[in-house]
Amino acid sequence: MDKIYPDWTLTHKKTLDGVGLQPIPATVPGAVQLDYARAFNYADYWYGENYKQFIWMEDEYWTYSTELVFTCAEDEKAIFHFGGIDYEYTILANGEQLCHGEGMFTPVDVNLTSYSGQKIRLDVVIHPIPKCSNARPHTRQEARESCKPPSAYGWDWHPRLVPMGIWEESYLEIIPKGTLLSLDATYRLSDDLTVCHIKAFATMYGEDDVTVTLSTPDGAVVFSETQRFTEYNHNVTVFDIENPKLWYPRGYGDQPLYVLTAECGKSPKKLSKKLGFRRSRLVRNPDDEAPGFPKSRYDSPATLEINGVKVFAKGSNWVNTEIFPCLMDEKRYRELIDLAYGANMNIFRVWGGGFINKESFYDICDEYGIMIWQEFVMSCNLYPDKEHFLGVLEQEATTVVKRLRSHPCLVLWCGGNELFNSWSGMTEQSHALRLLDSICYKYDRFTPFNMTSPLTGMGHGTYNNVISNEDGRSANPNNLPEGVKLPEKDCEFITLLTYCRHTAYTEFGCCGGADPEYIKKYITSGDSYENCSPDNPVWVSHHAFKAWSPTSWLRIPETEYYFGGYTDTDDLMRKSLLIQSVCYKAMFEEMRKQAPRCSMALNWDFNEPWPCAAGNSLVNWPAEPKPALESVRQALRPTLASIRAFKNRYLTGETMKAEVWMLNDSQNAVDLEKINVYIDRNGTRELILSLCVDTVEARTNRKFGELRLPISVDFPPLFKIALDVPSAPECNSEYIFFHR
Amino acid sequence: MDKIYPDWTLTHKKTLDGVGLQPIPATVPGAVQLDYARAFNYADYWYGENYKQFIWMEDEYWTYSTELVFTCAEDEKAIFHFGGIDYEYTILANGEQLCHGEGMFTPVDVNLTSYSGQKIRLDVVIHPIPKCSNARPHTRQEARESCKPPSAYGWDWHPRLVPMGIWEESYLEIIPKGTLLSLDATYRLSDDLTVCHIKAFATMYGEDDVTVTLSTPDGAVVFSETQRFTEYNHNVTVFDIENPKLWYPRGYGDQPLYVLTAECGKSPKKLSKKLGFRRSRLVRNPDDEAPGFPKSRYDSPATLEINGVKVFAKGSNWVNTEIFPCLMDEKRYRELIDLAYGANMNIFRVWGGGFINKESFYDICDEYGIMIWQEFVMSCNLYPDKEHFLGVLEQEATTVVKRLRSHPCLVLWCGGNELFNSWSGMTEQSHALRLLDSICYKYDRFTPFNMTSPLTGMGHGTYNNVISNEDGRSANPNNLPEGVKLPEKDCEFITLLTYCRHTAYTEFGCCGGADPEYIKKYITSGDSYENCSPDNPVWVSHHAFKAWSPTSWLRIPETEYYFGGYTDTDDLMRKSLLIQSVCYKAMFEEMRKQAPRCSMALNWDFNEPWPCAAGNSLVNWPAEPKPALESVRQALRPTLASIRAFKNRYLTGETMKAEVWMLNDSQNAVDLEKINVYIDRNGTRELILSLCVDTVEARTNRKFGELRLPISVDFPPLFKIALDVPSAPECNSEYIFFHR
Repeated sequence: MDKIYPDWTLTHKKTLDGVGLQPIPATVPGAVQLDYARAFNYADYWYGENYKQFIWMEDEYWTYSTELVFTCAEDEKAIFHFGGIDYEYTILANGEQLCHGEGMFTPVDVNLTSYSGQKIRLDVVIHPIPKCSNARPHTRQEARESCKPPSAYGWDWHPRLVPMGIWEESYLEIIPKGTLLSLDATYRLSDDLTVCHIKAFATMYGEDDVTVTLSTPDGAVVFSETQRFTEYNHNVTVFDIENPKLWYPRGYGDQPLYVLTAECGKSPKKLSKKLGFRRSRLVRNPDDEAPGFPKSRYDSPATLEINGVKVFAKGSNWVNTEIFPCLMDEKRYRELIDLAYGANMNIFRVWGGGFINKESFYDICDEYGIMIWQEFVMSCNLYPDKEHFLGVLEQEATTVVKRLRSHPCLVLWCGGNELFNSWSGMTEQSHALRLLDSICYKYDRFTPFNMTSPLTGMGHGTYNNVISNEDGRSANPNNLPEGVKLPEKDCEFITLLTYCRHTAYTEFGCCGGADPEYIKKYITSGDSYENCSPDNPVWVSHHAFKAWSPTSWLRIPETEYYFGGYTDTDDLMRKSLLIQSVCYKAMFEEMRKQAPRCSMALNWDFNEPWPCAAGNSLVNWPAEPKPALESVRQALRPTLASIRAFKNRYLTGETMKAEVWMLNDSQNAVDLEKINVYIDRNGTRELILSLCVDTVEARTNRKFGELRLPISVDFPPLFKIALDVPSAPECNSEYIFFHR
Repeated sequence: MDKIYPDWTLTHKKTLDGVGLQPIPATVPGAVQLDYARAFNYADYWYGENYKQFIWMEDEYWTYSTELVFTCAEDEKAIFHFGGIDYEYTILANGEQLCHGEGMFTPVDVNLTSYSGQKIRLDVVIHPIPKCSNARPHTRQEARESCKPPSAYGWDWHPRLVPMGIWEESYLEIIPKGTLLSLDATYRLSDDLTVCHIKAFATMYGEDDVTVTLSTPDGAVVFSETQRFTEYNHNVTVFDIENPKLWYPRGYGDQPLYVLTAECGKSPKKLSKKLGFRRSRLVRNPDDEAPGFPKSRYDSPATLEINGVKVFAKGSNWVNTEIFPCLMDEKRYRELIDLAYGANMNIFRVWGGGFINKESFYDICDEYGIMIWQEFVMSCNLYPDKEHFLGVLEQEATTVVKRLRSHPCLVLWCGGNELFNSWSGMTEQSHALRLLDSICYKYDRFTPFNMTSPLTGMGHGTYNNVISNEDGRSANPNNLPEGVKLPEKDCEFITLLTYCRHTAYTEFGCCGGADPEYIKKYITSGDSYENCSPDNPVWVSHHAFKAWSPTSWLRIPETEYYFGGYTDTDDLMRKSLLIQSVCYKAMFEEMRKQAPRCSMALNWDFNEPWPCAAGNSLVNWPAEPKPALESVRQALRPTLASIRAFKNRYLTGETMKAEVWMLNDSQNAVDLEKINVYIDRNGTRELILSLCVDTVEARTNRKFGELRLPISVDFPPLFKIALDVPSAPECNSEYIFFHR
């Protein structure tokens, strides 16, 4: 049972029946763009505007070719396994078509047994990227009739650069009879969580006696049974285990992982799979129904309840780690997840415009207790009710659900991003979403499914620190209580947020730039760096300007708002990073204060797949934390003292009216005596309030007092408020405010 | 192929293995309560409090028994077909259990071939009605873990009287080989509606050549094909027809019905089925997304679009026509649907707390062009995610969808009633609702599916003409624009409604009494009649008091509000009926004025299954129209002049500020010249306004002017405003107002 990884070459042509030009060496797994860049010494795609070099490749046919000679014994078969082909493909053996298909996430197995003993030329033709015919050219609309991740078509943090190629591990395998091919399991917990009903199933080539075993995290065997498994049977092993050790998100309990194995005598191959057991539900938030008549529906449930325990979900939106899916790897996953873990996060929303991650991503999250909200590959488009599209979607979604359902970290399926908003126009009647709900119900019904985000009661946006009318976007007046009016122009988003009563903030962003040294290294330097303006295409390409509105994501007017201006590009970038830090901290802490009405706070976004000069992320590509990550880490500590100041910037003469809170989303009560509030002006600390406080129960937030602080002319441009908790210094907090 | 209808007897017992007592003759189809009442001379169940006689029967086991002798030839089989058994049952032959099941809507076929030539005793044991163990006794909660229609457990228009028995046609049939057993078809229209792709499928006992034919409504054969059908094949005939004549709701086009037949040589049996072709979609209403950020979801789509044409749905909520399902019949259906048709309705919502109707109901609606919104049997309960319940639900829903999907009238499936409201507590995560969506998607995906009503943007209620604080229910403040405040107490619901901006009013009620002669005939007379108060249990039993709130549904305080009082019961009932008429007219016309933001107006409710002394219905049981039906008929005319007066009652000194509108939801423009507005006081007409008007386009409403009318002390207690349209007198309208 050897795996053979042949050498491949790559050619391209304009039409399917054309002649391939310029054979170059190909790397599998890889991408045609990377092979071509390697062969022809293209400059780094992440630098400057170099991504534009690749545009012409989108509409070509790309042929991977290899030659194989192999021999199968009588009881063997030869399977060429393609782990993933991106996107539409035709596979030929000696010029004869073996199969044609589309969808990058469904592996393709080609049976080559009949070619045993012959020389075989294998061709994999990658078709041009899908482009919906009536779409606006060079926009995400082109992806709206396919399952191709749309962010590659251009997004406000992603250049137009659409990967193509054999992106997953692919090899020829000679398989003898009596080989176990796959092992999978589903389970159902009893209502009281004391019994786990497990169904393990395996596929087999030939037949043999197979022993299926389940071991505890400590290695103790809790179940073992030997049965005759055959090629044409379902090979199901059903058993119960009593008092299973349950998997919890971090902070709520442990992450025990059982090991399921299947082994047969004849074959050297033993399959094994980790399993974690948990019950995930999405339950209703408080105050979810408006009083009186006419009565409409309440808000969609938005509280994750794991094993009966309601969880406050705090984390971030995850996008693809790389432009090219072949470059996603366990090392990068672990670096990034380590950073999120360090920042006290317990959830990622794996956003529907990017890739479904590789297995190792979910393995790490299982291990760390980080919950995953997993979306299918649809975002911001009107995906149609068309047969062909629905067929591909069914294939891709079925693959994904069956592959990922046994990961305990995966607590929520979701159809995709912002599909119900006006810019998409889908509804709960859209066949794609009804189909996805059906598939999730059929294969994984004990994990909840949402059609999209946001749903009724949830909120997306905004992504600016200051709301202005410049973008034609205003604060949502429906969220304001009677009598409250926001300033018409230049209101901080944090001010609006204190009046919002959303169930879940599943996207919100505070934009900021990047460290000058980072930008110079990856993006641009010298004159081009100093000319930081919408006229400079390098800055524009890397999303500093015109990414969404004319001024995003660098938003120079915000630097004006908070600082009154800047001196040079270095100064601009550093000020912008500080604004982002301060605002993210205030936002996350405000959302925590709104619990239990609010049960989720997920900023947009955690990471990015290439170097952005500005944006909402907490981590720069490939895995370099921005300063805001540290302020988010502080904001997401299980227990902390927190201020609610309603604004981050004060003008001379204003009075800060701020509340002092203790936030506690841990499983334990905290006993306190005192919170001391200091003002720090230019390094000089002054006690301005000392509050006597007592116990804060587990999973409870409490307001303990208020302060009023007149902002006089002698305040420096930046000052700090510090909250010290002498009996629990790990709860100490410090806030920066802007004064103008 | 004879059908044998044997004679049945009925006994009852306390336990499944007990001995049946008191054999009485049984009627099949029927109900055990009706058999028992007949045998023991019970008084009419609809009179007084007689329904209480039946309570004890709920917890008994009821056994239907018969004896059969039949002979099958070698190529015949003997099937006992039960059209519907309500609810849980065990079927035994000569004391041996043949099957056990539950669910009243799924037919049960028992194969008795092996008993050919023997005497066979057939027993059908009906188990006690399902009662969820932890439910509040004698409430609808008892039905929440079954598919038993919950209204029978007691509702504000239904007594506690829960039917049991073999309710559908049931017979023994000797079937020779070569018999066609069933014929069904599904279809899909091309995007441009010019091609209809049809899949016809049949089941067969034995095998034979079968000719499948499709004829146009005029009898012309458009397709015919003969194939070999066999017992174990799927027997599918697939074909396209070009330019199909499309089925439209009344007022939007014709209702052509094609005829599909299947015929085989050997068998005398020819099966036929009417088919109508239409595309139904549920599309978004205007202004369905709040501006600004944070962005939540838009309103659920609530506009029915049939064959690409948006329809204003005007109609009513349909409940079961009888307490006992065996009494539902085509004659009654036709009487009631005739009344709705006469009142210009184009839709029924078949509400989820009652029965799924028999075939003839849908046949009539197909023929009349009345759209059906069909709910599954769930209402106002938290139906659980339990395996057993979900299994029965899957069986029942699959039966219903496959039975009804070919009716063109059925334009919308819905999971059930008010399942997302606080008193139910279900969510889009509820497995029952995800299952129903899956089933509808699988078997009928070109008909939309809603999980429940109301959804986001839709409204249910209120059911009072005057909103008071008495019930602890207030007007929904979220619907009021800035600056608008309603009176805290005693505000007319019509006033609130003018500020509502719902997408669909899918339940709203105006309560009223019943005609004195009606009540005396069905309910009570003499002293009991005169003592019309909450202390009189006869009035309470028939829902005049304590049905929902202490004063509903007769709501004597409303008579005070509009009339200042009443003299005796006759006067009270007549005044109450007039209030209902006036209020329904104003409500329906207001909702029409809110088009296209609003696209549905369905009052609660159309009919009732037994005599109610008061309630929201337009028709008394069995099919006696109330006066409000005539005012609804006027309000739902395709084209009419209409007033928006904001109130129905004016106090001396107030000024009526009213708008004059033309409403037109027809397919044609209307040319007008003038609308004359008259006031009619005690029969004296006075012209108060004459408006010059021009064309009102198809499906358009227009406001043409306003009037201000000071209400002076000399106004009589009732006065009228008449709108005359000299060039189109069919558009003339007249409104009654109350003056105090």
